[in-house]
Amino acid sequence: MDSNRTPRITDVDVVDVRFPTSRELDGSDAMNPDPDYSAAYVVLRTDADRGPDGPLEGHAFAFTIGRGNEVQTAAVAALREHVVGLSVDAVCADPGTVSRTLNGDSQLRWLGPEKGVMHMAVGAVVNAVWDLAARRAGKPVWKLLADAEPEWLADQVDYRYIEDTLSRADAVALLRTGKEGSAGREAHLRSHGYPAYTTSPGWLGHSDQKLVRLAKQAVADGFTQIKLKVGADLADDVRRLRTARAAVGPDVRIAVDANQRWNIGEAIDWTNALAESDPYWIEEPTSPDDILGHAAVRRAVAPVKVATGEHVHNRVVFKQLLQAEAIDVLQIDAARVGGVNENLAILLLAAAFGVPVCPHAGGVGLCELVRHLAMFDFVALSGTTDDRVIEYVDHLHEHFEDPAVVSDGRYTAPTMPGFSSRMRPETISTYRYPDGSFWAADLTGQGKDTRI
Amino acid sequence: MDSNRTPRITDVDVVDVRFPTSRELDGSDAMNPDPDYSAAYVVLRTDADRGPDGPLEGHAFAFTIGRGNEVQTAAVAALREHVVGLSVDAVCADPGTVSRTLNGDSQLRWLGPEKGVMHMAVGAVVNAVWDLAARRAGKPVWKLLADAEPEWLADQVDYRYIEDTLSRADAVALLRTGKEGSAGREAHLRSHGYPAYTTSPGWLGHSDQKLVRLAKQAVADGFTQIKLKVGADLADDVRRLRTARAAVGPDVRIAVDANQRWNIGEAIDWTNALAESDPYWIEEPTSPDDILGHAAVRRAVAPVKVATGEHVHNRVVFKQLLQAEAIDVLQIDAARVGGVNENLAILLLAAAFGVPVCPHAGGVGLCELVRHLAMFDFVALSGTTDDRVIEYVDHLHEHFEDPAVVSDGRYTAPTMPGFSSRMRPETISTYRYPDGSFWAADLTGQGKDTRI
Repeated sequence: MDSNRTPRITDVDVVDVRFPTSRELDGSDAMNPDPDYSAAYVVLRTDADRGPDGPLEGHAFAFTIGRGNEVQTAAVAALREHVVGLSVDAVCADPGTVSRTLNGDSQLRWLGPEKGVMHMAVGAVVNAVWDLAARRAGKPVWKLLADAEPEWLADQVDYRYIEDTLSRADAVALLRTGKEGSAGREAHLRSHGYPAYTTSPGWLGHSDQKLVRLAKQAVADGFTQIKLKVGADLADDVRRLRTARAAVGPDVRIAVDANQRWNIGEAIDWTNALAESDPYWIEEPTSPDDILGHAAVRRAVAPVKVATGEHVHNRVVFKQLLQAEAIDVLQIDAARVGGVNENLAILLLAAAFGVPVCPHAGGVGLCELVRHLAMFDFVALSGTTDDRVIEYVDHLHEHFEDPAVVSDGRYTAPTMPGFSSRMRPETISTYRYPDGSFWAADLTGQGKDTRI
Repeated sequence: MDSNRTPRITDVDVVDVRFPTSRELDGSDAMNPDPDYSAAYVVLRTDADRGPDGPLEGHAFAFTIGRGNEVQTAAVAALREHVVGLSVDAVCADPGTVSRTLNGDSQLRWLGPEKGVMHMAVGAVVNAVWDLAARRAGKPVWKLLADAEPEWLADQVDYRYIEDTLSRADAVALLRTGKEGSAGREAHLRSHGYPAYTTSPGWLGHSDQKLVRLAKQAVADGFTQIKLKVGADLADDVRRLRTARAAVGPDVRIAVDANQRWNIGEAIDWTNALAESDPYWIEEPTSPDDILGHAAVRRAVAPVKVATGEHVHNRVVFKQLLQAEAIDVLQIDAARVGGVNENLAILLLAAAFGVPVCPHAGGVGLCELVRHLAMFDFVALSGTTDDRVIEYVDHLHEHFEDPAVVSDGRYTAPTMPGFSSRMRPETISTYRYPDGSFWAADLTGQGKDTRI
């Protein structure tokens, strides 16, 4: 190879990958009865030298729950022209330029701005750039972030629309403080991991018997917090929460999650009716867009905490949730907003307001990604895991090359370079929709057409 | 034909239509320098009896500004399965059921919820249903709405997430009051039309000379309000606004529009710097998601009014803009939210708060659609046009079968049945992307590939 050649991103592949999860009951909640966890999976190809693991590539994905994954895939493809031809050195040195370019396309911006399908597509491409950069640096993303200089990290953030609350100078100050003592916290993270909580006991589809069994198992497995889905039927929820509380005892936290099911009045009444069993937080009590509504719920249900974030579409809404004192717990999602850069902005906002971050995970691949962000936050930003837990759901991890590992109720720190975002090749060839081997056989066998 | 047969929606066509508007300067603002006005155009086909104008169909579209229109088109196609096979009688009798079904698809909901590409797709299909229903009723949409019973109209609204502010009973009460005297207002509308304002003088790409000429022409044409785009350069804006003010005199209102260009501090400083020339409102001073930011701007720039809405993605955000006293002027858009049903909710919220609605229009087809909503509001809801004007931009109307007509500064009330949403067949065959006759010749001639 010509040593003077500048390695470049040569192509962007996008694959529609779907898992038939709706055929089991796991994953059911009051708003999402039958999700087929899916990914609009993106691969940035380069002509950089092959490393020990093959050609240098960046992988990531947008997460969806089935129908419409083809729309999400089309949205990622619409970004292709902004990425092909970019210098690998340049994007690795400054992923923020890619983030700004993608968010700055004035025609595509009309489709949001910075929300919905188009913004999740930006997030997928930006996260793939971070996977590429971390692989090239030979570090997991959490470590790449934790090792970075505060000034460089601060430059990764787009302050547009949040500068009234968080300036670059504020960010640098927070990151400098966050660096103090980071070596000790990194060592602690590597030896002890990061606290997790589990949603596996609490899906709506479970019988009370299964709920009790899984809740007890969760405590035996070392979890100090579990979560129950609520919102379909109040009497059922009162009984299920009592049942769970009896199973785990008074010292294990039980979060409840309504998945946006309620109006404001319902949210308040329902949560207060559950209060007898001491729920720790009520999650997504209403529309993720309703900042003032969350604030009203929070005032009315204290001391039960209010948590939200998995559907909060960008840093501007998170800024206001904090300004309005609408949430006690901020739940980032790795694949909803515009990727690592915007999540860095959100972590900085949370740190500025002193609100704990408890990431949303589950689905497919969300546990794999989001642990990197929480671990960076612990090592080099907030500096604490007090009242912080990462959601854990025990499914679909086997499809990843660097799967999430939870042991004794704690996420292990990943050590492989990259963002843990790569699916195994055989997973993609099996679950690619509609022509992967699983779907081809399934759709043929059932006489369905492939139209979704 | 079997007279017992139930007519049904037999198919949904979606067409990617793009106009090469970026090749002229019209349409340029601080955020959107080169829009190619486009439509993800939807046709609901039926097997109902042919009327005098041909087969009964429903037409509408989502509006975009170019790149990504293929994503928007894919989003409309994803809704197809919910619509094909529905009874024409049933959807015409209750478009709200279609609206609820489309918004209620739990898997597609993940892609929003109720925002961005997927929500605009819902809006396009719902608006096509209203076109179908109005054609079948032999009335323009504004008249169909104005003639409807308050209880039926109230049932067209989804109160989820707004019930804390607007209940069904509130809606019925507002609509009953709105009915009083509606016959007189309808007669007035038919003879006098509805006030318009024009943005044509104020695009950023215009020279000062062109600005003066077009501003004077607007006044001569009967407009009592014009609008200037601002936000690229403060000194330029101060000069342009002075120039426009000198051209039109003190009695013509001049709105200014920043198209989301600013942070909060900038918005306040910039607007206050323009205050010497008495701007009527500042439009989109910052992110459309920033409810609290708009409220802060409003407090700091009074008596200049704050207007927003063309990018506000649903009723939940409008509810909060009103609750937070963040806006003086609410700007609905016919093709951003979930169609007529959600715009009915937004008009009701505005009426409940007593905030005037001044619809956003322009682009392609937005003037054609949105006049129906404002005219219904005048005849049968707010009952007034005081401080209310519909935006008018004089381009691309020739592509519609029932084009917007503005005369002496006022929109004429449309009389043709339907939503005025149908493009001429020759427009579609010319501007279909990438294979319509214009694009095929253009893309071949310039040796471009067809990838966007």
